[in-house]
Amino acid sequence: METKNADEIFKEFKEHSVAEFFKKNRQMLGYSGKVRSLVTVVHEYVTNALDACEESGMLPSIEVQVSQTGDERYKVRVKDNGPGIPQAFAGKALATVLSGTKFHRYMQQRGQQGIGAAGCTMFSQTTTGKPVHFKSGTGSGKAYECDISIDTVKNKPVVTSVISADGEFRGSEITAEFADVKYENSDRSVYEYLRRTALSNPHLELKFTDPSGVESVFVRAIDVVPQRPKVAQPHPLGMTINDLLDLAKVSSNNKISAFLVEGFSRFSQNKLNEIKEKATDVDFNKAPRTMTWSDAESIIKAIKSVKWIAPDAGYIIPIGQKQMEVAVKNILNPDFMSVVERKPQVFRGGVPFIVEAAVAFGGLSGKSSEDGQHGILMRFANRVPLLYDAGACAITEAVQNIQWKRYGLDMDTQPISVCVNVSSVYIPYSGVGKEAIAQEDEIMFEIRLALMDALRGVQRYVSGKKQASHEMSRYRLIMRYTSQLASDLGDISEKDKKEIEEKLKVLVEMHYPKVRDSLSGEDSSVDSSSDEERDSGSDNGAV
Amino acid sequence: METKNADEIFKEFKEHSVAEFFKKNRQMLGYSGKVRSLVTVVHEYVTNALDACEESGMLPSIEVQVSQTGDERYKVRVKDNGPGIPQAFAGKALATVLSGTKFHRYMQQRGQQGIGAAGCTMFSQTTTGKPVHFKSGTGSGKAYECDISIDTVKNKPVVTSVISADGEFRGSEITAEFADVKYENSDRSVYEYLRRTALSNPHLELKFTDPSGVESVFVRAIDVVPQRPKVAQPHPLGMTINDLLDLAKVSSNNKISAFLVEGFSRFSQNKLNEIKEKATDVDFNKAPRTMTWSDAESIIKAIKSVKWIAPDAGYIIPIGQKQMEVAVKNILNPDFMSVVERKPQVFRGGVPFIVEAAVAFGGLSGKSSEDGQHGILMRFANRVPLLYDAGACAITEAVQNIQWKRYGLDMDTQPISVCVNVSSVYIPYSGVGKEAIAQEDEIMFEIRLALMDALRGVQRYVSGKKQASHEMSRYRLIMRYTSQLASDLGDISEKDKKEIEEKLKVLVEMHYPKVRDSLSGEDSSVDSSSDEERDSGSDNGAV
Repeated sequence: METKNADEIFKEFKEHSVAEFFKKNRQMLGYSGKVRSLVTVVHEYVTNALDACEESGMLPSIEVQVSQTGDERYKVRVKDNGPGIPQAFAGKALATVLSGTKFHRYMQQRGQQGIGAAGCTMFSQTTTGKPVHFKSGTGSGKAYECDISIDTVKNKPVVTSVISADGEFRGSEITAEFADVKYENSDRSVYEYLRRTALSNPHLELKFTDPSGVESVFVRAIDVVPQRPKVAQPHPLGMTINDLLDLAKVSSNNKISAFLVEGFSRFSQNKLNEIKEKATDVDFNKAPRTMTWSDAESIIKAIKSVKWIAPDAGYIIPIGQKQMEVAVKNILNPDFMSVVERKPQVFRGGVPFIVEAAVAFGGLSGKSSEDGQHGILMRFANRVPLLYDAGACAITEAVQNIQWKRYGLDMDTQPISVCVNVSSVYIPYSGVGKEAIAQEDEIMFEIRLALMDALRGVQRYVSGKKQASHEMSRYRLIMRYTSQLASDLGDISEKDKKEIEEKLKVLVEMHYPKVRDSLSGEDSSVDSSSDEERDSGSDNGAV
Repeated sequence: METKNADEIFKEFKEHSVAEFFKKNRQMLGYSGKVRSLVTVVHEYVTNALDACEESGMLPSIEVQVSQTGDERYKVRVKDNGPGIPQAFAGKALATVLSGTKFHRYMQQRGQQGIGAAGCTMFSQTTTGKPVHFKSGTGSGKAYECDISIDTVKNKPVVTSVISADGEFRGSEITAEFADVKYENSDRSVYEYLRRTALSNPHLELKFTDPSGVESVFVRAIDVVPQRPKVAQPHPLGMTINDLLDLAKVSSNNKISAFLVEGFSRFSQNKLNEIKEKATDVDFNKAPRTMTWSDAESIIKAIKSVKWIAPDAGYIIPIGQKQMEVAVKNILNPDFMSVVERKPQVFRGGVPFIVEAAVAFGGLSGKSSEDGQHGILMRFANRVPLLYDAGACAITEAVQNIQWKRYGLDMDTQPISVCVNVSSVYIPYSGVGKEAIAQEDEIMFEIRLALMDALRGVQRYVSGKKQASHEMSRYRLIMRYTSQLASDLGDISEKDKKEIEEKLKVLVEMHYPKVRDSLSGEDSSVDSSSDEERDSGSDNGAV
């Protein structure tokens, strides 16, 4: 047996770049499986396009084109009408892992990692050897095109073939080719990803051209750019000792007292006085950068012992109940739907989030396959559809824990679509691939409440429908005898048989008013009940 | 609505260190949940200790101590007898994310990322504000102690309070304190993690002191250091075009031909000639560093079109059938077990791996809870127990797809322990937290075969046991009548009743030989059947 001492072993010691790491472990970024890999690419580009458009205050118009260039080889082109990327930043934005404008901001955004686009560049490069082609115009009259690849050892961009482009061009257009991928029509395909993106972003206009050349247009359902979430001040209850120290170190305030009042949400002068009374060992007049662990520990302890107003909901912009209704109607055209928007809550002590749920019944809801109709769950985080890793997700877990039978519903056999969107300044994804929300208790609890609320609405509709169908059978059964009965009564009474039959019919219809209405085309039960339910959903759940 | 142009938006552009990323997303490293976080710490330290001991060729002796220091606050101490860490590397090894001796080597190791220990340092620092205390001696007469923390913004270590230590000390001892953690006795606790580590590492001597002071010793079951896996040469079928180019760029060979024959496993001169005949557009005499994408593409295409011998099994060292038997007996002391070691296979075209499975029945197998006995699954990757994220794991999926009823077994009610270990030079973990193996088809298939093989053995044992129990009832029933019958026959024949009874008993016992043996204490069915099964398992599955 060969033996080695430490010096021999540590000859092998090396440092590695984060790009090398994710190149080797690309499955962690969602590049596992040919179909999923292609969805991951589209997801990263579309996510970035949407974030960019909204940040610049534009109504997003996005074009996605996927074309086949060889065996398990596809070209993806994503074009947006956003603000573009200044030329000096293009390389880093698309080819440096862990860089960008999002990671460090305490703000609700789709992207939050600074990994996605660089991951695509690496995946293109490692499967085809080709750089990504990028075209961008910032609207200032200048536009450019270039090729971008990544030096994975250094985690640095390599930008080549830079040329000027048409100055009119505004927005970004990425074209990249990938091998080891496959386009497929399935539940978890590019098309389905885009359909769900349209569902959760009714202000988006999206054109998709698939590899066979078929063009799908998801039209804009709402002409308003969603309210832009503010960069949030952290809520005191969301702070750990370490977070507080980190913020104190870079604070420009002169005193700890000012740092607290100015740097945190809901930290009034009154609250400061309460904290001062409890954390008597801390000198609140000294500079924040001199704060010690023990100072921070005392302050956090004091923070946890007093009462706080919940975080400001302005930091989180959900899809919104009205918008979600329009979007669900637009995409699923259901017979009935119930939409619930819950009030903002916090997890991990102080990270604010909002849960929305829509349950749609009938129309294009659910999924029909060979073995009949069944329900589907659509998961969203900050409006981004999550198609994979369902098993690990807080939303799936919450949906599975619902006792569907209690609501007279069955996901295995009925045309039901359940949509859940979790919005937050920080979505606690369970993995770098961002396909599942970690099972935080508070988040699961809110999802459950939202669903139960929405399901009560659907339950009333479905049981109403069942009753109506029952009444219709009885109505028809009785009507079958009215002619014969009218004829017999006519013979006995020697009166006009037609007249008797008409009178009998009116008599029967009086007993089944709903059936009569529905037969005469005035089916009010479905829509009005839908409206009622929406309002009740609103009463129960909204802000 | 505020609008922004690209220049305003990109004022926020920043680069971030991988340490910052994982500090913010610590749940991705396994630091989610108080109980799991503590297990993650122990897992990272013990994994590193085992790798270090084996690399230096020592039989590992490891001490783990967990003590409570406050409310949800614990101190963890892990000491090994390994080669130690040279002073110059201590900081980086424990406080630089993505550094180490393992990431770049194509070799079967427990750790393969260079994230674990630095993750612990960050977790200690962010929850308690304290550095990690480290003591190490490399056996060269010099030893030292120091405090290590991490500058997360720069991803660089901060080493302080360095002092010399007792020169006799050989090995490493890490002491670190963590808050937001909890010690618990459960299926997925520190104790259970260590018990399973002992199961999959029978050459390990492990002492564990829990927070209540109770000491558990897992004794060494085998006195041999496992054969050390070689640093593997990659198999040609496991190469992508990009991999080949990357290796070519850093090759010291003068010609592509030599680079291929010397750099890859199973690449003989004959194979080279076959490749040359197919990749006619490539100049095999030019320097590897001048290889183009198109050259690499042709070579890979040619490689995929010829036949190759499977990878050399010497690159992968499984636990081994005999060792696994000893270990299972040592830890579970089952009534019966069946152990199967499969032959090496490849996934993703050329990454070699070996699957082993043990199914134990009775004894301490399975788990007994309030609602009775049931089976448990123990997952391992390169001998490391995987306690969390079971739902996402290839092993779980394979076990769930087994039709247990076919084998007359039921995981819901029987005392069964299923152990599956996957060994490879590269385990495709689904996440950075390394708790689940990605569901690669080839790996799932091998696990399934291994399990089916092992289960056939258990089936024979359990059905034998059922039959024996059935025979025992009949035997007892008949024996109940022998006295009376002997007495009656004695009356009729006027012979000695005792003698008749003895003769009757012999007659009955002749019909139930197994029952007789088991009653006389010579229960051979269990062990010998067990041995038979082992052999048959071996015939069916081993190399």
